[in-house]
Amino acid sequence: MVRRNDERRAALLDAAIEVLAERGARGLTFRAVDAEAGVPNGTTSNYFANRDQLLIQAGTRVYERLDPGGEGAAEEPSGPQDTERFVELMVDLVAKVSGFRSGYLALLELRLEAIRRPELRRLLTERVRADIAHNVAHQAASGLPGDAISVKLLICAYNWLILEQLTLPEVFDEAERAELIRAAVPRLVGGA
Amino acid sequence: MVRRNDERRAALLDAAIEVLAERGARGLTFRAVDAEAGVPNGTTSNYFANRDQLLIQAGTRVYERLDPGGEGAAEEPSGPQDTERFVELMVDLVAKVSGFRSGYLALLELRLEAIRRPELRRLLTERVRADIAHNVAHQAASGLPGDAISVKLLICAYNWLILEQLTLPEVFDEAERAELIRAAVPRLVGGA
Repeated sequence: MVRRNDERRAALLDAAIEVLAERGARGLTFRAVDAEAGVPNGTTSNYFANRDQLLIQAGTRVYERLDPGGEGAAEEPSGPQDTERFVELMVDLVAKVSGFRSGYLALLELRLEAIRRPELRRLLTERVRADIAHNVAHQAASGLPGDAISVKLLICAYNWLILEQLTLPEVFDEAERAELIRAAVPRLVGGA
Repeated sequence: MVRRNDERRAALLDAAIEVLAERGARGLTFRAVDAEAGVPNGTTSNYFANRDQLLIQAGTRVYERLDPGGEGAAEEPSGPQDTERFVELMVDLVAKVSGFRSGYLALLELRLEAIRRPELRRLLTERVRADIAHNVAHQAASGLPGDAISVKLLICAYNWLILEQLTLPEVFDEAERAELIRAAVPRLVGGA
Protein backbone atom coordinates (compact mmCIF):
# COMPACT_ATOMS: atom_id res chain seq x y z
CA MET A 1 0.00 0.00 0.00
CA VAL A 2 2.84 2.36 0.84
CA ARG A 3 4.47 1.37 -2.42
CA ARG A 4 1.30 2.06 -4.32
CA ASN A 5 1.07 5.50 -2.68
CA ASP A 6 4.67 6.22 -3.62
CA GLU A 7 3.93 5.35 -7.22
CA ARG A 8 0.86 7.56 -7.26
CA ARG A 9 2.83 10.42 -5.70
CA ALA A 10 5.56 10.05 -8.32
CA ALA A 11 2.97 10.06 -11.13
CA LEU A 12 1.43 13.25 -9.72
CA LEU A 13 4.85 14.89 -9.55
CA ASP A 14 5.57 13.86 -13.14
CA ALA A 15 2.31 15.52 -14.13
CA ALA A 16 3.29 18.62 -12.13
CA ILE A 17 6.58 18.79 -14.09
CA GLU A 18 4.67 18.81 -17.37
CA VAL A 19 2.30 21.51 -16.12
CA LEU A 20 5.22 23.65 -14.91
CA ALA A 21 7.06 23.34 -18.22
CA GLU A 22 3.95 24.09 -20.23
CA ARG A 23 2.21 26.77 -18.16
CA GLY A 24 4.76 28.02 -15.66
CA ALA A 25 4.54 28.14 -11.88
CA ARG A 26 1.57 30.49 -12.15
CA GLY A 27 -0.32 27.79 -14.02
CA LEU A 28 0.45 25.08 -11.48
CA THR A 29 -2.73 24.37 -9.54
CA PHE A 30 -3.81 21.15 -7.84
CA ARG A 31 -6.62 20.92 -10.35
CA ALA A 32 -4.28 21.31 -13.35
CA VAL A 33 -2.13 18.47 -11.99
CA ASP A 34 -5.21 16.26 -11.50
CA ALA A 35 -6.19 16.90 -15.12
CA GLU A 36 -2.67 16.31 -16.47
CA ALA A 37 -2.36 13.06 -14.49
CA GLY A 38 -5.85 11.93 -15.48
CA VAL A 39 -6.98 11.41 -11.89
CA PRO A 40 -10.16 12.60 -10.14
CA ASN A 41 -10.25 16.22 -8.97
CA GLY A 42 -8.99 16.46 -5.41
CA THR A 43 -6.41 13.68 -5.73
CA THR A 44 -3.35 15.96 -5.80
CA SER A 45 -4.55 17.99 -2.83
CA ASN A 46 -4.70 14.73 -0.84
CA TYR A 47 -1.02 14.08 -1.47
CA PHE A 48 0.49 17.52 -0.87
CA ALA A 49 -0.08 19.80 2.11
CA ASN A 50 0.11 23.00 0.04
CA ARG A 51 1.33 24.50 -3.23
CA ASP A 52 4.84 25.16 -1.93
CA GLN A 53 5.18 21.45 -1.15
CA LEU A 54 3.98 20.51 -4.62
CA LEU A 55 6.42 23.00 -6.21
CA ILE A 56 9.48 21.90 -4.29
CA GLN A 57 8.74 18.18 -4.58
CA ALA A 58 8.32 18.58 -8.34
CA GLY A 59 11.83 20.14 -8.40
CA THR A 60 13.25 17.28 -6.35
CA ARG A 61 11.56 14.80 -8.68
CA VAL A 62 13.41 16.31 -11.67
CA TYR A 63 16.74 15.58 -9.97
CA GLU A 64 15.60 12.04 -9.07
CA ARG A 65 14.64 11.29 -12.64
CA LEU A 66 17.95 12.61 -13.96
CA ASP A 67 19.88 10.47 -11.49
CA PRO A 68 17.65 7.58 -10.33
CA GLY A 69 20.34 5.81 -8.27
CA GLY A 70 21.62 8.99 -6.64
CA GLU A 71 25.03 8.07 -7.94
CA GLY A 72 25.69 10.97 -10.29
CA ALA A 73 28.55 10.34 -12.67
CA ALA A 74 30.20 8.14 -10.07
CA GLU A 75 29.98 4.87 -11.97
CA GLU A 76 33.06 2.65 -12.12
CA PRO A 77 35.84 4.40 -14.01
CA SER A 78 36.81 2.69 -17.25
CA GLY A 79 40.11 3.53 -18.90
CA PRO A 80 42.32 6.52 -18.10
CA GLN A 81 40.71 9.42 -16.24
CA ASP A 82 42.02 12.02 -18.62
CA THR A 83 40.66 15.06 -20.44
CA GLU A 84 39.25 12.94 -23.27
CA ARG A 85 37.35 10.80 -20.76
CA PHE A 86 36.10 13.99 -19.07
CA VAL A 87 34.83 15.27 -22.44
CA GLU A 88 32.89 12.04 -23.06
CA LEU A 89 31.30 12.16 -19.60
CA MET A 90 30.24 15.77 -20.16
CA VAL A 91 28.82 15.09 -23.64
CA ASP A 92 26.68 12.33 -22.10
CA LEU A 93 25.63 14.50 -19.17
CA VAL A 94 24.54 17.44 -21.35
CA ALA A 95 22.62 15.05 -23.62
CA LYS A 96 20.87 13.51 -20.61
CA VAL A 97 19.84 16.84 -19.05
CA SER A 98 18.77 18.51 -22.31
CA GLY A 99 16.90 15.31 -23.25
CA PHE A 100 14.63 15.79 -20.24
CA ARG A 101 13.19 18.96 -21.73
CA SER A 102 10.14 19.38 -19.48
CA GLY A 103 12.26 18.72 -16.37
CA TYR A 104 14.79 21.40 -17.25
CA LEU A 105 12.09 23.95 -18.12
CA ALA A 106 10.20 23.10 -14.92
CA LEU A 107 13.32 23.89 -12.88
CA LEU A 108 13.69 27.23 -14.69
CA GLU A 109 10.08 28.11 -13.91
CA LEU A 110 10.67 27.15 -10.27
CA ARG A 111 13.71 29.45 -10.14
CA LEU A 112 11.65 32.38 -11.40
CA GLU A 113 8.91 31.58 -8.90
CA ALA A 114 11.50 31.30 -6.11
CA ILE A 115 12.21 35.02 -6.48
CA ARG A 116 8.86 35.64 -4.82
CA ARG A 117 8.74 32.60 -2.47
CA PRO A 118 11.41 32.52 0.25
CA GLU A 119 10.70 28.94 1.35
CA LEU A 120 10.89 27.62 -2.21
CA ARG A 121 14.09 29.64 -2.69
CA ARG A 122 15.64 28.16 0.45
CA LEU A 123 14.83 24.59 -0.60
CA LEU A 124 15.93 25.05 -4.22
CA THR A 125 19.17 26.71 -3.08
CA GLU A 126 19.87 23.71 -0.85
CA ARG A 127 19.22 21.31 -3.73
CA VAL A 128 21.38 23.19 -6.24
CA ARG A 129 24.21 23.57 -3.72
CA ALA A 130 24.10 19.83 -2.95
CA ASP A 131 24.28 19.07 -6.66
CA ILE A 132 27.30 21.32 -7.18
CA ALA A 133 29.03 19.88 -4.09
CA HIS A 134 28.36 16.35 -5.38
CA ASN A 135 29.96 17.19 -8.72
CA VAL A 136 32.95 18.90 -7.13
CA ALA A 137 33.52 15.92 -4.79
CA HIS A 138 33.17 13.46 -7.65
CA GLN A 139 35.75 15.28 -9.77
CA ALA A 140 38.19 15.43 -6.86
CA ALA A 141 37.78 11.71 -6.10
CA SER A 142 37.82 10.52 -9.70
CA GLY A 143 41.27 11.50 -10.81
CA LEU A 144 39.77 13.55 -13.64
CA PRO A 145 41.80 16.70 -14.39
CA GLY A 146 40.78 20.13 -13.10
CA ASP A 147 39.63 21.58 -9.78
CA ALA A 148 36.51 22.89 -8.05
CA ILE A 149 36.59 26.09 -10.11
CA SER A 150 36.62 24.19 -13.39
CA VAL A 151 33.68 22.03 -12.27
CA LYS A 152 31.63 25.09 -11.29
CA LEU A 153 32.42 26.93 -14.53
CA LEU A 154 31.51 23.82 -16.55
CA ILE A 155 28.18 23.63 -14.71
CA CYS A 156 27.50 27.30 -15.55
CA ALA A 157 28.50 27.07 -19.22
CA TYR A 158 26.57 23.84 -19.81
CA ASN A 159 23.46 25.03 -18.01
CA TRP A 160 23.31 28.08 -20.25
CA LEU A 161 24.00 26.05 -23.39
CA ILE A 162 21.08 23.79 -22.47
CA LEU A 163 18.85 26.77 -21.74
CA GLU A 164 19.81 28.24 -25.12
CA GLN A 165 19.06 24.97 -26.88
CA LEU A 166 15.66 24.55 -25.22
CA THR A 167 14.46 28.14 -25.60
CA LEU A 168 16.17 29.53 -28.74
CA PRO A 169 17.46 26.39 -30.51
CA GLU A 170 18.71 28.28 -33.57
CA VAL A 171 21.13 30.58 -31.77
CA PHE A 172 23.77 27.83 -32.12
CA ASP A 173 23.41 25.09 -34.70
CA GLU A 174 24.02 21.49 -33.69
CA ALA A 175 27.64 21.36 -34.86
CA GLU A 176 28.51 24.57 -33.04
CA ARG A 177 26.80 23.41 -29.86
CA ALA A 178 28.73 20.12 -29.98
CA GLU A 179 31.98 22.02 -30.52
CA LEU A 180 31.32 24.32 -27.55
CA ILE A 181 30.44 21.40 -25.26
CA ARG A 182 33.69 19.60 -26.15
CA ALA A 183 35.94 22.68 -26.15
CA ALA A 184 34.81 23.74 -22.68
CA VAL A 185 36.52 20.83 -20.95
CA PRO A 186 40.17 21.18 -22.02
CA ARG A 187 39.98 24.96 -21.70
CA LEU A 188 38.44 24.94 -18.23
CA VAL A 189 40.43 22.07 -16.75
CA GLY A 190 43.68 23.31 -18.26
CA GLY A 191 44.53 19.93 -19.74
CA ALA A 192 44.43 20.77 -23.46
CA MET B 1 6.14 65.64 -31.69
CA VAL B 2 7.92 62.59 -33.06
CA ARG B 3 10.43 62.94 -30.27
CA ARG B 4 7.69 63.13 -27.67
CA ASN B 5 6.13 59.97 -29.11
CA ASP B 6 9.50 58.21 -28.93
CA GLU B 7 9.85 59.15 -25.30
CA ARG B 8 6.38 57.93 -24.50
CA ARG B 9 7.03 54.66 -26.35
CA ALA B 10 10.28 54.15 -24.40
CA ALA B 11 8.47 54.80 -21.13
CA LEU B 12 5.82 52.23 -22.04
CA LEU B 13 8.51 49.67 -22.90
CA ASP B 14 10.25 50.36 -19.59
CA ALA B 15 6.95 49.67 -17.87
CA ALA B 16 6.55 46.48 -19.91
CA ILE B 17 10.00 45.31 -18.73
CA GLU B 18 8.93 45.75 -15.10
CA VAL B 19 5.66 43.88 -15.71
CA LEU B 20 7.50 41.03 -17.46
CA ALA B 21 10.04 40.69 -14.64
CA GLU B 22 7.36 40.81 -11.98
CA ARG B 23 4.53 38.79 -13.52
CA GLY B 24 6.00 36.94 -16.49
CA ALA B 25 4.91 37.02 -20.12
CA ARG B 26 1.54 35.60 -19.14
CA GLY B 27 0.95 38.65 -16.97
CA LEU B 28 1.91 41.13 -19.71
CA THR B 29 -1.28 42.79 -20.92
CA PHE B 30 -1.75 46.24 -22.46
CA ARG B 31 -3.75 47.15 -19.39
CA ALA B 32 -1.02 46.03 -16.97
CA VAL B 33 1.50 48.19 -18.85
CA ASP B 34 -0.85 51.19 -18.75
CA ALA B 35 -1.15 50.75 -14.98
CA GLU B 36 2.60 50.27 -14.45
CA ALA B 37 3.38 53.37 -16.57
CA GLY B 38 0.67 55.42 -14.86
CA VAL B 39 -1.04 56.35 -18.13
CA PRO B 40 -4.74 56.15 -19.10
CA ASN B 41 -6.12 52.75 -20.10
CA GLY B 42 -5.78 52.27 -23.84
CA THR B 43 -2.51 54.19 -24.21
CA THR B 44 -0.28 51.13 -24.73
CA SER B 45 -2.64 49.61 -27.29
CA ASN B 46 -2.29 52.85 -29.32
CA TYR B 47 1.47 52.40 -29.52
CA PHE B 48 1.77 48.69 -30.31
CA ALA B 49 -0.07 46.77 -33.02
CA ASN B 50 -0.34 43.59 -30.94
CA ARG B 51 1.06 41.70 -27.97
CA ASP B 52 3.89 40.10 -29.97
CA GLN B 53 5.10 43.58 -30.94
CA LEU B 54 5.01 44.70 -27.33
CA LEU B 55 6.92 41.57 -26.21
CA ILE B 56 9.66 41.80 -28.79
CA GLN B 57 10.11 45.56 -28.49
CA ALA B 58 10.42 45.18 -24.71
CA GLY B 59 13.25 42.70 -25.38
CA THR B 60 14.96 45.09 -27.78
CA ARG B 61 14.60 47.86 -25.22
CA VAL B 62 16.54 45.80 -22.65
CA TYR B 63 19.49 45.59 -25.07
CA GLU B 64 19.24 49.33 -25.81
CA ARG B 65 19.33 50.23 -22.15
CA LEU B 66 22.33 47.96 -21.54
CA ASP B 67 24.21 49.52 -24.46
CA PRO B 68 22.70 52.97 -25.19
CA GLY B 69 25.23 53.97 -27.86
CA GLY B 70 25.16 50.59 -29.60
CA GLU B 71 28.90 50.47 -29.11
CA GLY B 72 29.22 47.42 -26.89
CA ALA B 73 32.57 47.19 -25.18
CA ALA B 74 34.16 48.89 -28.19
CA GLU B 75 35.33 52.01 -26.41
CA GLU B 76 38.88 53.20 -27.00
CA PRO B 77 41.36 50.64 -25.72
CA SER B 78 43.49 51.92 -22.86
CA GLY B 79 46.69 50.13 -21.94
CA PRO B 80 47.70 46.65 -23.07
CA GLN B 81 44.95 44.39 -24.41
CA ASP B 82 45.97 41.44 -22.27
CA THR B 83 44.22 38.88 -20.11
CA GLU B 84 44.15 41.20 -17.12
CA ARG B 85 42.44 43.90 -19.21
CA PHE B 86 39.98 41.27 -20.48
CA VAL B 87 39.16 40.29 -16.88
CA GLU B 88 38.43 43.92 -15.94
CA LEU B 89 36.16 44.36 -18.98
CA MET B 90 34.26 41.19 -18.06
CA VAL B 91 33.89 42.14 -14.38
CA ASP B 92 32.36 45.47 -15.51
CA LEU B 93 30.10 43.77 -18.07
CA VAL B 94 28.72 41.21 -15.60
CA ALA B 95 28.12 43.98 -13.05
CA LYS B 96 26.25 46.05 -15.66
CA VAL B 97 24.01 43.21 -16.83
CA SER B 98 23.24 41.82 -13.37
CA GLY B 99 22.63 45.39 -12.15
CA PHE B 100 19.70 45.67 -14.58
CA ARG B 101 17.78 43.02 -12.70
CA SER B 102 14.33 43.55 -14.22
CA GLY B 103 15.81 43.66 -17.75
CA TYR B 104 17.59 40.35 -17.33
CA LEU B 105 14.53 38.67 -15.81
CA ALA B 106 12.30 40.11 -18.55
CA LEU B 107 14.55 38.53 -21.21
CA LEU B 108 14.33 35.18 -19.41
CA GLU B 109 10.53 35.39 -19.35
CA LEU B 110 10.57 36.25 -23.06
CA ARG B 111 12.73 33.19 -23.78
CA LEU B 112 10.25 30.94 -22.01
CA GLU B 113 7.37 32.56 -23.87
CA ALA B 114 9.25 32.17 -27.18
CA ILE B 115 8.92 28.39 -26.84
CA ARG B 116 5.26 28.82 -27.71
CA ARG B 117 5.52 31.83 -30.08
CA PRO B 118 7.42 31.24 -33.30
CA GLU B 119 7.55 34.91 -34.34
CA LEU B 120 8.89 35.99 -30.96
CA ARG B 121 11.40 33.14 -31.11
CA ARG B 122 12.57 34.21 -34.57
CA LEU B 123 13.08 37.82 -33.49
CA LEU B 124 14.76 36.95 -30.17
CA THR B 125 17.05 34.47 -31.93
CA GLU B 126 18.09 37.22 -34.36
CA ARG B 127 18.78 39.61 -31.49
CA VAL B 128 20.81 37.11 -29.46
CA ARG B 129 22.80 36.01 -32.51
CA ALA B 130 23.59 39.65 -33.37
CA ASP B 131 24.79 40.21 -29.82
CA ILE B 132 27.07 37.15 -29.90
CA ALA B 133 28.43 38.15 -33.34
CA HIS B 134 29.11 41.66 -32.06
CA ASN B 135 31.08 40.30 -29.11
CA VAL B 136 33.03 37.85 -31.27
CA ALA B 137 33.91 40.61 -33.77
CA HIS B 138 34.92 42.97 -31.00
CA GLN B 139 37.26 40.43 -29.43
CA ALA B 140 38.86 39.69 -32.82
CA ALA B 141 39.38 43.38 -33.60
CA SER B 142 40.52 44.39 -30.13
CA GLY B 143 43.72 42.43 -29.79
CA LEU B 144 42.35 40.80 -26.61
CA PRO B 145 43.51 37.18 -26.22
CA GLY B 146 41.29 34.23 -27.14
CA ASP B 147 39.08 33.29 -30.07
CA ALA B 148 35.40 32.98 -31.02
CA ILE B 149 35.00 29.84 -28.91
CA SER B 150 36.30 31.54 -25.80
CA VAL B 151 33.94 34.49 -26.33
CA LYS B 152 30.93 32.18 -26.72
CA LEU B 153 31.84 30.09 -23.67
CA LEU B 154 32.35 33.26 -21.62
CA ILE B 155 28.89 34.46 -22.67
CA CYS B 156 27.39 31.12 -21.57
CA ALA B 157 29.19 30.93 -18.23
CA TYR B 158 28.44 34.56 -17.34
CA ASN B 159 24.81 34.36 -18.38
CA TRP B 160 24.27 31.41 -16.06
CA LEU B 161 26.20 33.06 -13.20
CA ILE B 162 23.91 36.09 -13.56
CA LEU B 163 20.81 33.90 -13.67
CA GLU B 164 22.03 32.10 -10.54
CA GLN B 165 22.66 35.40 -8.75
CA LEU B 166 19.25 36.84 -9.65
CA THR B 167 17.18 33.73 -8.90
CA LEU B 168 19.06 31.79 -6.17
CA PRO B 169 21.55 34.36 -4.84
CA GLU B 170 22.84 32.12 -2.05
CA VAL B 171 24.06 29.26 -4.26
CA PHE B 172 27.37 31.13 -4.60
CA ASP B 173 28.40 33.77 -2.09
CA GLU B 174 29.78 37.08 -3.31
CA ALA B 175 33.45 36.13 -2.98
CA GLU B 176 32.93 32.85 -4.84
CA ARG B 177 30.98 34.57 -7.61
CA ALA B 178 33.75 37.16 -8.03
CA GLU B 179 36.36 34.38 -8.14
CA LEU B 180 34.43 32.48 -10.82
CA ILE B 181 33.94 35.60 -12.96
CA ARG B 182 37.68 36.37 -12.86
CA ALA B 183 38.90 32.77 -13.26
CA ALA B 184 36.77 32.18 -16.37
CA VAL B 185 38.84 34.54 -18.52
CA PRO B 186 42.37 33.13 -18.26
CA ARG B 187 41.03 29.57 -18.41
CA LEU B 188 38.85 30.13 -21.45
CA VAL B 189 41.21 32.36 -23.43
CA GLY B 190 44.19 30.16 -22.64
CA GLY B 191 46.29 33.12 -21.54
CA ALA B 192 46.77 32.19 -17.88
